[in-house]
Amino acid sequence: MKTDQTAIQDCYPDDFAHCYGCGRLNQNGLQLRTFWSEDGTTVTYYKPKDSQIAIPGFVYGGLLASFVDCHGTGSAALMKHRLNGFNPEDGEEAPRFVTGSLHLDYLKPTPHGELLKAIGTAEEIHPKKFKIHVAVYAGSLHVVNGEVIAVEAPSSFNRQT
Amino acid sequence: MKTDQTAIQDCYPDDFAHCYGCGRLNQNGLQLRTFWSEDGTTVTYYKPKDSQIAIPGFVYGGLLASFVDCHGTGSAALMKHRLNGFNPEDGEEAPRFVTGSLHLDYLKPTPHGELLKAIGTAEEIHPKKFKIHVAVYAGSLHVVNGEVIAVEAPSSFNRQT
Repeated sequence: MKTDQTAIQDCYPDDFAHCYGCGRLNQNGLQLRTFWSEDGTTVTYYKPKDSQIAIPGFVYGGLLASFVDCHGTGSAALMKHRLNGFNPEDGEEAPRFVTGSLHLDYLKPTPHGELLKAIGTAEEIHPKKFKIHVAVYAGSLHVVNGEVIAVEAPSSFNRQT
Repeated sequence: MKTDQTAIQDCYPDDFAHCYGCGRLNQNGLQLRTFWSEDGTTVTYYKPKDSQIAIPGFVYGGLLASFVDCHGTGSAALMKHRLNGFNPEDGEEAPRFVTGSLHLDYLKPTPHGELLKAIGTAEEIHPKKFKIHVAVYAGSLHVVNGEVIAVEAPSSFNRQT
């Protein structure tokens, strides 16, 4: 699960590190962490808790939506950070993306008890907007396809609205 | 928040009442409850917890996805139950739907601290498949549009896969 590697979420400014899905400072959240893979895709892992089920034996679809959501914004941040010339290991603050739209196709029921893996490819559609294609696996089983439109948040986001 | 009214989730068989989003038997979950409104739309309410944020002051998109997801399956169950001749108050077991696909457009940041309200309209596209159009409000602010394709689960679902 690559916990020794620096995740893009490790590089978010503290103000942007409280997300329930991926905030390193949210002790009640999922604390999702997103990395580059060697093949140029992005990857996030999560092992669902016992309570995170739809029906006994199967993972809750809303948890999968959260997983895809934060994998999407994390992948966009990784890509934008790379385009700015940085990798997570460089110690530079990373840009923070928010979700414009989220889509999931549930291909089959997701068995509980397996490690979830989201694999993403990020496509720039505007300097501040990326489309992330996501495939989710439960163990070796391909269970979900997702798409996230992620939009770069202004650094003053939390004072603008 | 209509807690005196019977929700469709009160009518799910016990085996199908453990969902993290809407299971009345899941003590760690959101325990969402979905009702008919007098105008023929469906409605679900939820007040996000302090931890369920994206950034301070704004609700987490994955929580909104969970809210739309279970509002969608609940709305489909309400509609199918009505087509079968029943209302939640009748004490009959309701059909249980699972999510085939989920889509959300985040129209604007969702302010934290407001009561969320999902309003749904259910459209039958097959006797066992419904499309649910969802609008989410935070207080009076329209923050999300969503669409759920919900598919009726066979009663033996948890023994089929």
